Amino acid sequence: MKTIGENLRSQLRVVMVATRNPLNLGAAARAMANFGFSRLRVVNPYDVAFREARSAVGAAALLREAEMCATVTDAVSDCRLVVGTTSVGHRELQHPLRRLEYGARLILRALAQGPVALLFGSEKFGLSNDDLSHCHWLMRIPTVSQDLSMNLGQAVALCLYELARDPEAVNARPAKVNPATAGETEQVTALLMQALRDSGYVNPLTAASSEEKVRRMVRRLRITAHDAPVFMGMLRQILWKLDTATSGRGSE
Amino acid sequence: MKTIGENLRSQLRVVMVATRNPLNLGAAARAMANFGFSRLRVVNPYDVAFREARSAVGAAALLREAEMCATVTDAVSDCRLVVGTTSVGHRELQHPLRRLEYGARLILRALAQGPVALLFGSEKFGLSNDDLSHCHWLMRIPTVSQDLSMNLGQAVALCLYELARDPEAVNARPAKVNPATAGETEQVTALLMQALRDSGYVNPLTAASSEEKVRRMVRRLRITAHDAPVFMGMLRQILWKLDTATSGRGSE
Repeated sequence: MKTIGENLRSQLRVVMVATRNPLNLGAAARAMANFGFSRLRVVNPYDVAFREARSAVGAAALLREAEMCATVTDAVSDCRLVVGTTSVGHRELQHPLRRLEYGARLILRALAQGPVALLFGSEKFGLSNDDLSHCHWLMRIPTVSQDLSMNLGQAVALCLYELARDPEAVNARPAKVNPATAGETEQVTALLMQALRDSGYVNPLTAASSEEKVRRMVRRLRITAHDAPVFMGMLRQILWKLDTATSGRGSE
Repeated sequence: MKTIGENLRSQLRVVMVATRNPLNLGAAARAMANFGFSRLRVVNPYDVAFREARSAVGAAALLREAEMCATVTDAVSDCRLVVGTTSVGHRELQHPLRRLEYGARLILRALAQGPVALLFGSEKFGLSNDDLSHCHWLMRIPTVSQDLSMNLGQAVALCLYELARDPEAVNARPAKVNPATAGETEQVTALLMQALRDSGYVNPLTAASSEEKVRRMVRRLRITAHDAPVFMGMLRQILWKLDTATSGRGSE
């Protein structure tokens, strides 16, 4: 499986049907900008002042260019696949209901063949049966309770994220933090042992076994290449102070 | 890979640091309820009236039980892993930065060992360097542009969704829509052929090859068990009307 490219992203039409709160249109636009989608269609919004939505941080242009459609029929007419969204599940119509994880794979495949419409209903009622009759199938966001609908802006973000997420990224390489070399780590160990000896923490009789334990302990810290010289600087300063303190006491 | 169970969900602490907009605390609580998480901790919110947040539809109880913490130190003290979130990426501190897809797998593993804190910073500034210094590593939501931050409520929803999503669901079985039997499909075909003959659509000379084409076409429709009798009913009514119309014309 591959991640979604620029050309596929441009084939998706996000269709917001009868949205009541302009903030949610703004949130939808922002999520689209976050995940690289650009074609927003708005059907019969409750508040036509939606282009001013404050929640569209960084997505004002996308919101300005949103297409106003009079009906769902208009909004989906150029699309080869029409998918409705629901977080509730129960529907009277005979629609295949697919979980987001699987539905998104089907949408990615369809985007390669032409425009796909993804429909989101109103905050209060979701998609109507009339809206749903335009859909080939429905996609369900896998919430734990089907009684509790999702926030509309969050639902849009989740669907676009699932389309944009990279399945390969699950098997990530280890983070790009450079571990210190064994030599650097041993320098830290040696300085720490010196500090433990100078401060009287280490009993001279058991020093050898202590040193082994300290060496293991320092390895477990997995000190980074960046941090090793910082630790060495700290320990040298402590050693200097211990030495001074000892000399000071010695000269008392 | 398995999905997250009830016992693991209860180990996650969602920590909202210096949130400015109470609506975002409500949206966070709602997303938590949607995906079955319950432990919300709030550090130093801008508006302490957050428990009234209207956006917490269905999550008012969760919001009421949110723990107020004076500092990040308090909010994470019982956690064995502390993860900060960012959609921006660039950070001055030496933090491993992991993509959400991978980070969520690590968190799932850690939840099995004990409480994990997931930190979200303020809408405007994200997590401060002081907040970040408590984190073992950072998780980045893979947005297309690192200049455009995500909406806070949407960011929370995405992280919880990735923890709750079922990797196996990608390989879903076909939808549970029963296809019609071959017998039912053939009944539809026969009725349609009859209507085509009665209406004069089919040329009697080429009827045999037409029937084969119609049979193939009807199979391509993949009629469901639910729809087959509906189609038969429609066609029988049409046949009845065609017959009546013909008889009527005959008696004229």
